[in-house]
Amino acid sequence: MTRTDTSAVTQQAQHAPALIALDWGTTALRAYLLDAQGVVLDSRASSAGIMNLPRPAAQGGFDTVFDATCGAWLASGAQLPVIAAGMVGSAQGWMEAPYVATPADPAALVAGIVRVTTLKGLTVHIVPGVLEDGALPNVMRGEETQIFGALASDTTLEHEPHGGLIGLPGTHAKWAVVSKGRIERFYTFMTGETFGALRDHTILGRTMRATDQHDLAAFIRGVDTAKDAGHAGMLATIFSTRTLGLTGQLKPEQQADYLSGLLIGHELRGLNEVLAREQADLAGKTLRLIGNDALCERYRHALARFGCHDARTVAHATERGLHRIALQAGLIRSTSSAN
Amino acid sequence: MTRTDTSAVTQQAQHAPALIALDWGTTALRAYLLDAQGVVLDSRASSAGIMNLPRPAAQGGFDTVFDATCGAWLASGAQLPVIAAGMVGSAQGWMEAPYVATPADPAALVAGIVRVTTLKGLTVHIVPGVLEDGALPNVMRGEETQIFGALASDTTLEHEPHGGLIGLPGTHAKWAVVSKGRIERFYTFMTGETFGALRDHTILGRTMRATDQHDLAAFIRGVDTAKDAGHAGMLATIFSTRTLGLTGQLKPEQQADYLSGLLIGHELRGLNEVLAREQADLAGKTLRLIGNDALCERYRHALARFGCHDARTVAHATERGLHRIALQAGLIRSTSSAN
Repeated sequence: MTRTDTSAVTQQAQHAPALIALDWGTTALRAYLLDAQGVVLDSRASSAGIMNLPRPAAQGGFDTVFDATCGAWLASGAQLPVIAAGMVGSAQGWMEAPYVATPADPAALVAGIVRVTTLKGLTVHIVPGVLEDGALPNVMRGEETQIFGALASDTTLEHEPHGGLIGLPGTHAKWAVVSKGRIERFYTFMTGETFGALRDHTILGRTMRATDQHDLAAFIRGVDTAKDAGHAGMLATIFSTRTLGLTGQLKPEQQADYLSGLLIGHELRGLNEVLAREQADLAGKTLRLIGNDALCERYRHALARFGCHDARTVAHATERGLHRIALQAGLIRSTSSAN
Repeated sequence: MTRTDTSAVTQQAQHAPALIALDWGTTALRAYLLDAQGVVLDSRASSAGIMNLPRPAAQGGFDTVFDATCGAWLASGAQLPVIAAGMVGSAQGWMEAPYVATPADPAALVAGIVRVTTLKGLTVHIVPGVLEDGALPNVMRGEETQIFGALASDTTLEHEPHGGLIGLPGTHAKWAVVSKGRIERFYTFMTGETFGALRDHTILGRTMRATDQHDLAAFIRGVDTAKDAGHAGMLATIFSTRTLGLTGQLKPEQQADYLSGLLIGHELRGLNEVLAREQADLAGKTLRLIGNDALCERYRHALARFGCHDARTVAHATERGLHRIALQAGLIRSTSSAN
């Protein structure tokens, strides 16, 4: 039996479900039930990312996961609008939503929405990703929605002289330059995935000892090595993870944190080189982070070594971004004028 | 029955076996039977590297492999001296030969030789590796012997103004600065192993199509990207392997060569940054390579993009190095005065 108390009933009366918002990536799905103002009434998590569906897409894999995750919210026959962002709009997704080019604003995303009808007749609105074309093209799917969610709740970055900077640490870390409510350009660093590949599939992992303790000093040492002695490049510095161990300067249980610091340090060193060509610098910059708290905390430590001391994490960027785009697309109407 | 012809008999008479020389690494063993002048009379290859012994070291694993590989050369009861270089002298090897510090010359290596006696009473002389200590320590085992082998047959590098440069491409590529017959300093780039980890264990491999055809244009494109647009660092540029595919600019069968070019390009870009701090530059430099022909050929193509057009491969560096150190250690006597 489901527990219900008076305050929950009261809240439910005030906040009627108005939107199902999906953040559907490669390895996970997060689903939110929102009211018209974007208040989260309920949420569900599933490991059925687009590469991890219980049955192939051609056999209704997406429908199955959608029903299993969101079915309870629709049990009363409610016809809620559904919005989705992330790899669900890729060529391997439910339906491909072609990339929108930079500079990109929410209106461009809305114009690029594609619609897929579920077996039960609901329309799922899939938000497109963003492409920056060129000699080194960059793509994102999902992060554009988080970025607009962050901008909806934090206008600090609008006043940054060279454009605001938003970092999204992770498997494929993104750094986006935003101004006038647009994503002007962005960069991808394969930091998280490269760390995993080096730790699990090269000689560097062999001398590491796993531990639950995060060694901040070893992490900072890695960051500083990349910052101060990283001119030879990452292929050179990573070998020190092993040789500092061989020479008794780094314990086995410190080596993973050191390597993590090295890679994040190389990411920030590279980002700083990019910024330098735009007459900007991480030192003294105000920026924002989106991502899980522990990882953002690591990045704040690393950013501080580069002279950046104002790098707060923006919470709830995903839900806010999905709500904002749904509003702009006319899928819901807010009684407030905030958006 | 073994075939014997007159010329072979004549040669054997002229070139009496004088030394067994072993290049014993992590994944392979190469054994050479040399005469006193270093002429190779016979050679054997085995996949029994030190991490791949048929039985544990404590149960005679090294003896077993040595007997299986070199036993035939000792069948007549000959008491040949044995010299060995490579990971066989590491902590995981037959017996640890502590590193010799840079700057290192052949006399220092000879002074650091450790001796292990086989079950049949032969003495194996294990050449130590070289260590460059510091904030980013570097180590080599086996390459020091190849470098001295190269210097024995090619004195070109002695006349280079900022020291000669020798590159040893591979899993862990080494670049050594040599002068006055010494290894002055050296650098390690984990290029080969990182390439394998990225190709086999990240998203980059998923869009690659394997092919036997080497696509030189795709390789060069990767090198040029690292050289001309690599300031953001390798973590950023490698993502273009995927996005150039997504945007139709790079075919699936070109992506592995492109990534290979990118990584080797980043290695050379980093090396050039190191050289710049020594007032040197790859452009116009004369250097030498040691390694397998196909890989050295790739490096020559890449070096040419950095303005270096004199990078010949030195053949037989391993055997020559082992012979040279054996001579200097007094294990054999040469009738010639060449060494």
